[in-house]
Amino acid sequence: MNNKEIYLDNSATTKVCQKSIDAVLNAMQNDYGNATSLHRKGFEAEKLIINAKKEICKALMCNENEIFFTSGATESNNMAIIGSVLANKRRGKKIITTVIEHSSVLEPTKFLESMGYEIVRIKPNENGEFLPIDFFNAVDDNTVLVSTMFVNNETGTILPVCEIAKAVKAKNKQTIFHTDAVQGFLKMPLKVKNTDIDLLSFSGHKIYAPKGIGGLYIKKGTKIQPLLYGGGQQNGIRVGTDSVPLISGLGQAVAEILPQREKLLSNYKELKNYLISMLENNDNVIINSKQNDAPYIVNISVKKIRSEIMLHYLEQFNIYVSSGSACSKGANSHVLSAFGYSKDRVDTALRISFSKDTTKEDLEFFVEKLNDGINSLAKMK
Amino acid sequence: MNNKEIYLDNSATTKVCQKSIDAVLNAMQNDYGNATSLHRKGFEAEKLIINAKKEICKALMCNENEIFFTSGATESNNMAIIGSVLANKRRGKKIITTVIEHSSVLEPTKFLESMGYEIVRIKPNENGEFLPIDFFNAVDDNTVLVSTMFVNNETGTILPVCEIAKAVKAKNKQTIFHTDAVQGFLKMPLKVKNTDIDLLSFSGHKIYAPKGIGGLYIKKGTKIQPLLYGGGQQNGIRVGTDSVPLISGLGQAVAEILPQREKLLSNYKELKNYLISMLENNDNVIINSKQNDAPYIVNISVKKIRSEIMLHYLEQFNIYVSSGSACSKGANSHVLSAFGYSKDRVDTALRISFSKDTTKEDLEFFVEKLNDGINSLAKMK
Repeated sequence: MNNKEIYLDNSATTKVCQKSIDAVLNAMQNDYGNATSLHRKGFEAEKLIINAKKEICKALMCNENEIFFTSGATESNNMAIIGSVLANKRRGKKIITTVIEHSSVLEPTKFLESMGYEIVRIKPNENGEFLPIDFFNAVDDNTVLVSTMFVNNETGTILPVCEIAKAVKAKNKQTIFHTDAVQGFLKMPLKVKNTDIDLLSFSGHKIYAPKGIGGLYIKKGTKIQPLLYGGGQQNGIRVGTDSVPLISGLGQAVAEILPQREKLLSNYKELKNYLISMLENNDNVIINSKQNDAPYIVNISVKKIRSEIMLHYLEQFNIYVSSGSACSKGANSHVLSAFGYSKDRVDTALRISFSKDTTKEDLEFFVEKLNDGINSLAKMK
Repeated sequence: MNNKEIYLDNSATTKVCQKSIDAVLNAMQNDYGNATSLHRKGFEAEKLIINAKKEICKALMCNENEIFFTSGATESNNMAIIGSVLANKRRGKKIITTVIEHSSVLEPTKFLESMGYEIVRIKPNENGEFLPIDFFNAVDDNTVLVSTMFVNNETGTILPVCEIAKAVKAKNKQTIFHTDAVQGFLKMPLKVKNTDIDLLSFSGHKIYAPKGIGGLYIKKGTKIQPLLYGGGQQNGIRVGTDSVPLISGLGQAVAEILPQREKLLSNYKELKNYLISMLENNDNVIINSKQNDAPYIVNISVKKIRSEIMLHYLEQFNIYVSSGSACSKGANSHVLSAFGYSKDRVDTALRISFSKDTTKEDLEFFVEKLNDGINSLAKMK
């Protein structure tokens, strides 16, 4: 067994980076005060929160009072969707989203559907694209919210969220625009300044911060009904003792990654091209990801070998990839189905997702073992 | 300035213990997988969650499938109160609670009040006690929920929650009983086995685990409407990627503290008696806590010196205490007022709360500086 861990499931979660670890440790051991305490220990903790906000604002180009910390993107998406719809009941009863959203967007919209809201779910066009005009056409006077993801977690499909937001507001400026930016935040360039984005969800654990922290950008003036009630922290929008270790860890992950973003993006492009070059002439492999998709996610289908079988085969060699999304634990991908892929292609899909530490050698070893798997697993049939 | 930090604000939050730190570190660096991933990295993360549940079950004496992790006790209390009431609408429209609850219980009940629920808030009797009979009398056929805290966060007042739960069920066995056990969990003996407690909230950061993690015990068969919708984690009751580092950190804090509980409790009693012995003959100090209150919280009032003034005076000497609760940042204590204390007594209250590391020497230094403060601050008037 190869001792080196080849972790290619970074869209599920990442290993925490050193700067983030150091920040978490400091807030557990030294600056361990409650940020709302009136004494110096409280003040020191509060400073860490403010610093984390500053780092995030550099990435998103927004103001510190527009950043709210949550327990993760699931909470951010729920707050954004349920919270904005309930706080703006007079703006309408229709919500527009897409068929390829993450479950933490799909399920809150289903909850609102059960409350009587009409949900319109936009499908990709025949080229697998989501065009602003489709959203423009769907929005009407009764549309309270449009929620679309920025980068799809399974295929890497990029949605033109700034242009979609602009189209939405051009049709109805009262409609709130939310984007689940979890898979794009800090990876693809995206800022909220001078855009029509009102709400933007992001997560820590996809960008080398620990699991259990995320955030929601709320444009000044956008009303949200809180999901939680209590001590009044974060202006009452999201109450509960602030998780200073995780908030500080998130801030420092952003501080480490943001200056490298362009370089990493260019690395990812090279890695993606390299991986595809090794696979594109393989008759047993179909590349599902497209050239224009986010370069850190490559989705493939392996003929006749079900995803889980190959996943466990690769695991023997300390290689970790995903079948579909980690959050739906083995369920059939609604995303690949939405793109019109056959059942066979969906059932045999693998997602390879890169981190800042992924190398060409990792990919070579992955391809070697993938080919071994194709040969030996096919024989077993 | 004394270099040793004398942190006597452990009811606001605690410094994370080494065992918990080690667990957090391990889950950030080594077992960093997403617990719902199908491969070994996911399985290793899931094992950490199961282990944490086992530790908590030893403390509460319940089953692993009755423990749900949250972002903290504020979320636990909101889930317990709003979630149980909305999931059991047919059981009635009345909720019974007390006037001394934490804001994370007070505010969700106010939210339900705004939705049309009747809230009955029980007051302490003239001896400052909450008797089961008062709850028995208040419960009727229309009572869906009774929620009372276990240990008050400002005074250390202990409520006989098992007896209250029993009285509640004797009157109406359909009424759900919830206790916010944050300030008693792992400190005072409390188990749920063979009791009438249906829901119990607990927090990590009061017991040497990091901020950002808590939990809710949900007795098998008790229905809860989730606050969040998404990927189906934790049986759909509380979704979102599990914060493996914090969950594991919480489990290990419990593993470290539970075996020491009796010893710590006895230490706290000694510390409390010692502190009171140093203060009880001081004409400038009123001891607000009673003999039977939890021994790790001592609430006092200092004549004519407002809480914040004394708090900042002590802070100069690296001594940290609290005025009221950290969660209400300087607001007047509704708890002390509920016990019938005069405005002066409330305005001058200080909370001293111990940790496992508090020593008699710490308390001696605190009393020395408190007395210095009384003398020098009084002169300034």
